[in-house]
Amino acid sequence: MPVAEQIKQSMASSSFIRKMFEEGIRMKALYGEDNVYDFSLGNPDLEPPEQVKAAVRETAALDEPGMHGYMPNAGYPFARAAMAGKVSREQGVPVEAGNIVMSVGAAGALNAVLKAVLSPGDEVLVPAPFFSEYTHYAANHGGRVVPVPAKPDFSPDIPALAAAANEKTAVLLINSPNNPSGKVYSPEDIRALAAFLQAHKEKTGRTVVLVADEPYREIVYGGVQVAPVFPAWSESVIVTSFAKNLSLPGERIGYAAVNPASENAAELTDGIVFATRILGYVNAPAFFQRVIARSWNAPADYTPYAARRQALSAVLRDAGISFAEPEGAFYLFCRVPEPKQAAHRDLSGNDKAFCDHLKEFRILGVPGSGFCGPGWIRLAYCVSAQTISGSRQAFAEAVKAW
Amino acid sequence: MPVAEQIKQSMASSSFIRKMFEEGIRMKALYGEDNVYDFSLGNPDLEPPEQVKAAVRETAALDEPGMHGYMPNAGYPFARAAMAGKVSREQGVPVEAGNIVMSVGAAGALNAVLKAVLSPGDEVLVPAPFFSEYTHYAANHGGRVVPVPAKPDFSPDIPALAAAANEKTAVLLINSPNNPSGKVYSPEDIRALAAFLQAHKEKTGRTVVLVADEPYREIVYGGVQVAPVFPAWSESVIVTSFAKNLSLPGERIGYAAVNPASENAAELTDGIVFATRILGYVNAPAFFQRVIARSWNAPADYTPYAARRQALSAVLRDAGISFAEPEGAFYLFCRVPEPKQAAHRDLSGNDKAFCDHLKEFRILGVPGSGFCGPGWIRLAYCVSAQTISGSRQAFAEAVKAW
Repeated sequence: MPVAEQIKQSMASSSFIRKMFEEGIRMKALYGEDNVYDFSLGNPDLEPPEQVKAAVRETAALDEPGMHGYMPNAGYPFARAAMAGKVSREQGVPVEAGNIVMSVGAAGALNAVLKAVLSPGDEVLVPAPFFSEYTHYAANHGGRVVPVPAKPDFSPDIPALAAAANEKTAVLLINSPNNPSGKVYSPEDIRALAAFLQAHKEKTGRTVVLVADEPYREIVYGGVQVAPVFPAWSESVIVTSFAKNLSLPGERIGYAAVNPASENAAELTDGIVFATRILGYVNAPAFFQRVIARSWNAPADYTPYAARRQALSAVLRDAGISFAEPEGAFYLFCRVPEPKQAAHRDLSGNDKAFCDHLKEFRILGVPGSGFCGPGWIRLAYCVSAQTISGSRQAFAEAVKAW
Repeated sequence: MPVAEQIKQSMASSSFIRKMFEEGIRMKALYGEDNVYDFSLGNPDLEPPEQVKAAVRETAALDEPGMHGYMPNAGYPFARAAMAGKVSREQGVPVEAGNIVMSVGAAGALNAVLKAVLSPGDEVLVPAPFFSEYTHYAANHGGRVVPVPAKPDFSPDIPALAAAANEKTAVLLINSPNNPSGKVYSPEDIRALAAFLQAHKEKTGRTVVLVADEPYREIVYGGVQVAPVFPAWSESVIVTSFAKNLSLPGERIGYAAVNPASENAAELTDGIVFATRILGYVNAPAFFQRVIARSWNAPADYTPYAARRQALSAVLRDAGISFAEPEGAFYLFCRVPEPKQAAHRDLSGNDKAFCDHLKEFRILGVPGSGFCGPGWIRLAYCVSAQTISGSRQAFAEAVKAW
């Protein structure tokens, strides 16, 4: 029995997202690509911008000695400098290359940060719903996620956070735009979070690190902007990637940025670099560090996502499914409709049963339970317009038969 | 104080290899590239073979939709199939794509395997000396490395391993060719290890997983061959990368291969895939999965390493430094010479002091203590012929002044 008991248990109860993605591959082989409506995975269907593709070709043509070799664990100085420029612009405060650690995607950055920060038994406050992998990431490093339900509009619930915080709280982890709700925190939300952290520090003496997971920062609708966290709370770190905004999730390229105003900025950065090394990432992939250093600010057109958001919204409304109006990212977080069929009466609010039901209509979504949001399901609309229009009848029939 | 106490302590006592590498960058800036003799890091100085470079250009020219997107966590089916072919050939037993998990380098593969296998308090037997990062990798997942000194010729000491094994032993981790000693285990060594594991199983009822870390498999001298482990012990996993044989360490591309004869092959593979996901690797970098699938068997010329091994051996012999004759990899593991200077009398066998002393002569090596091999130092000869010839006088002077 070589697999550890803990891992077996985690696997048994694990991510519906990936299960659905792999189920989708199977179903598409069976029924044909066009006859499966796969809204399971946040795998951008837009291609990377032309400037990124050009950077890929230019990097391949470079042929510089040692360009596939090791570099310092924190990444190439030029890549770190480029990211520092980006973060300075986004956060409105000057950030140096020394504050940046290049990473194996946002997941790699977040794991490195949690490894650097968490002591055994430490707690990570996360407004719920949230990306289900966070639970594993905290547990990897001896920590524990403490979900704190958000307000009905999915903004952070400060009194609930304050009630959940204690001496073991090491991290407050936020994700704006939020996966799965699409919520973007307002500047007031960020200020309120900072005030809560300050009050907590005064009460307990413990400084909580605010970690902002921001892979969807660029993908926002209706002129909404993602509020910066660096000016609000000095002990803060941003983790992000180019998976979503530049459609490069498979390339595993991202970074962690440490607030230069942190009292412990150098130590914290060193800790993240060290964690990057000992967790076996070693460094962010060399090739895509070069690609991203020359193309991170490629103009990208997210209007297709806006159009699909509209299209899927219309399909769902017509089918009688209600959902949270997303301000960013590319997910619709939908309420499980009330069952109409007598046989389904006891399935009211049962998101897993509803996802299984949708699968019979060849629609793949993810139960909200996996995001600490039971009673909801998540539909990723980073899919083709055909998938959305093709799903119209299937959704209508599925809701009728539910 | 946001950095965890445990991480601070690890950082303080941590890898001399990386410290030396970064010290080397600093010293080269100060004294000029040609005046620093940097033997610190196993960063291959040979360029990737032309066929690999061509695969990089071809992959960049592909422009297939979704080619930078997510794929299943285990990797692209075609990349897994290519690796299965490679492993079948090397191990002499048929291996399927389903037995392969593509990884973020060998370090990513090893961490995923240890995450899948280790329960809290489990022990990992490792013949010493060994690559110092193993200690962190085991600790990352609640395990503990138990170093077991090898025999004087650096082959595994079976009675010592048997004495160190107990009910908590979950893994036996071997590395042939060995970093830092250059030892290649003979088929008899592998058979003896398997017999020990069988006896241990009969005694304790616990099946120990044999993990073979093989990034140096191709880099061998004098017709030596790396013995396969799959035919010898069914509960075995190979972890490796293309960092050393194809000079791609910065690209973080490798794989884990599970022995198809394992009683738990499917479960173990699933566990490694799951660990790959939750450790935040998510998947091996997409671009280099494609590169490697088309160029893993690129002919590579290691004769420069053989020549450098000869050249550095001669430099050291002339300086009066003795070392283990390496059968593979690109390291010379050298005994700290006896001090000649009265002032150094109490530094006999002090590898850290000797490395500090070498630094005064602008020679960078790594103390053996970091490899659980005190009294020795490691010199990596994956460096230019000029560095080796340039170091001749420095070594002679350093030994004279020691």
